[in-house]
Amino acid sequence: MKATIFMKPGKVEVQDLTKPVIEKETDAIVRVVRACVCGSDLWWYRGISDHQSGAAVGHEAIGIVEAVGSAIDAIQPGDFVVVPFTHGCGHCVACLAGFDGDCLNRDGSSVGYQAEYLRYDNANWGLVKIPGQPADYSEEILNSLLTLSDVMATGYHAAATAEVKAGDTVVVMGDGAVGLCGVIAAKLRGASRIIAMSRHLDRQKLALEFGATDIVAERGDEAVTKVLELTNGGADAVLECVGNEQSVDTALKVGRPGAIVGRVGIPQKAEMNTNVLFRRNIGLRGGIAAVTTYDKNILLDAVLKGQINPGKVFTQSFTLDNIQAAYAAMDERKAIKSLVIVADK
Amino acid sequence: MKATIFMKPGKVEVQDLTKPVIEKETDAIVRVVRACVCGSDLWWYRGISDHQSGAAVGHEAIGIVEAVGSAIDAIQPGDFVVVPFTHGCGHCVACLAGFDGDCLNRDGSSVGYQAEYLRYDNANWGLVKIPGQPADYSEEILNSLLTLSDVMATGYHAAATAEVKAGDTVVVMGDGAVGLCGVIAAKLRGASRIIAMSRHLDRQKLALEFGATDIVAERGDEAVTKVLELTNGGADAVLECVGNEQSVDTALKVGRPGAIVGRVGIPQKAEMNTNVLFRRNIGLRGGIAAVTTYDKNILLDAVLKGQINPGKVFTQSFTLDNIQAAYAAMDERKAIKSLVIVADK
Repeated sequence: MKATIFMKPGKVEVQDLTKPVIEKETDAIVRVVRACVCGSDLWWYRGISDHQSGAAVGHEAIGIVEAVGSAIDAIQPGDFVVVPFTHGCGHCVACLAGFDGDCLNRDGSSVGYQAEYLRYDNANWGLVKIPGQPADYSEEILNSLLTLSDVMATGYHAAATAEVKAGDTVVVMGDGAVGLCGVIAAKLRGASRIIAMSRHLDRQKLALEFGATDIVAERGDEAVTKVLELTNGGADAVLECVGNEQSVDTALKVGRPGAIVGRVGIPQKAEMNTNVLFRRNIGLRGGIAAVTTYDKNILLDAVLKGQINPGKVFTQSFTLDNIQAAYAAMDERKAIKSLVIVADK
Repeated sequence: MKATIFMKPGKVEVQDLTKPVIEKETDAIVRVVRACVCGSDLWWYRGISDHQSGAAVGHEAIGIVEAVGSAIDAIQPGDFVVVPFTHGCGHCVACLAGFDGDCLNRDGSSVGYQAEYLRYDNANWGLVKIPGQPADYSEEILNSLLTLSDVMATGYHAAATAEVKAGDTVVVMGDGAVGLCGVIAAKLRGASRIIAMSRHLDRQKLALEFGATDIVAERGDEAVTKVLELTNGGADAVLECVGNEQSVDTALKVGRPGAIVGRVGIPQKAEMNTNVLFRRNIGLRGGIAAVTTYDKNILLDAVLKGQINPGKVFTQSFTLDNIQAAYAAMDERKAIKSLVIVADK
């Protein structure tokens, strides 16, 4: 089968690999219909983080279940599913608390979703069944369903851990696909004012379409001043969807006393002066999204009802054979997010 | 009037000062009936933090309003009040959000509660009226009312920011007066299991009386192992009521994925590796307590109904003339918390 392999920074290629098989009774094999490229893939693509040459890559997909292990009874071959990047078992203390991204029973053995087939561990609870078959849906809806494997759930995690509630004023740091999904999530949770921090016209436009009420193009101290003016003392909640030092620093300063920063941008700087938090009662939450939990509780339903349209973050599409171009488009900021069409729907 | 003055590390003394007067229209003058010594007073008493020699000290009291400024209409001379260490205006973005400890209009001019009289800024909303007069209450109830000026509200803030809810398993770090009040707060919010980290017999006994269900005497990694065993993977909420490096480090490790650490121990080490939080979705909240908010919303009522008895943290009492002994008893750990009787009830 065709699968995407990381060669070296700046280069991925499609190779012919052996089709995966059931290895454990909790596995499922999924035939991939759509996959995509994640902003986090760009770290190793750009050489910012290390990654093993020859590794199969990709962690977002939707597809059809082809085979299941003996311990699987919640899904069966033929089911159309969201394939989360997370692998929640559904019964450990983390999953039960609604944090399946930190499942204590995940084994990390499932990799390589930018491929024709993938093996998924902890499939019984982790996979999210979609009613019907791919052909029942428009391309637009398929795109939105694909975002439920990571980006939409990750944006939702920022809003959920920032504890966005009805009537809140919310600041969203980051206008990448995750930040834009954060705007959708804030609106879905009832925020009445959503301030998107963005200085790219195409992304500003999408943020406004997704529910942003204000755009702030400034950065650093100027951004802080602007938001504090707009909000008369600070926002109720802050979604940190970038992870770099300046963005995190700004995020900690634009909330009112008691505000919570929900962060999903993987932190690039570990050390932080947390007395800044203490002095203003700013909360810091967030981490890896609880993809299956959010999909099953709210997001799948919201997509199927047409309440949210996160698939609009895909601004370019590519076939699997053109995977290098899919990465390059995001690397060069020509695409907000690159869709990868693996098979006909 | 008599007032307590900080002389140098290890020495406080009662001096004769001019009685305070109304300086601003938002001021009230309060005749103090009971005051006490705070664990945070020990920092400068022990010379760990700097403090100006000659400064009037103390920030916890109950007493009778003697005079009010022209902008005050919610209280009047003769009223019996809790005098919080915080000074919430009641109408800024912080106060409205329930974080009056971070009031944007506080001016920090009110100091010196270990005295016969004090001046209190932002008195109209900040002071908390108690029904009746001191003579209407037993000494035990007066002691509990006095804790509403700081320690009980601070313990409650740890539980509130850790988002303790009915049925939760909660770990309380610290067996000082704040930690013990944290146990009370966790129980008041419906926690079903409360693990008190304590290795002092007298404090363990009081923790159990206040509602703790388990005692863990270990520290550091041994404590983490013990709690993870007891909780089968980590607690739902952690109250950090110490502030030192080891305690904060342990607090971040004893929660399950997604748990929130509510901290009120003023952090002695600013820099923290917050990737530890991100990797397990651990939340970090807390700061200065919202004393007036908690007193008015829940704590005064709970004391008056006899639901909680936080006054038991006072294990020794002193007259104002013996203030040096009151500090020494806490410094030498002979008292959990020292009561200061300023006037007859």
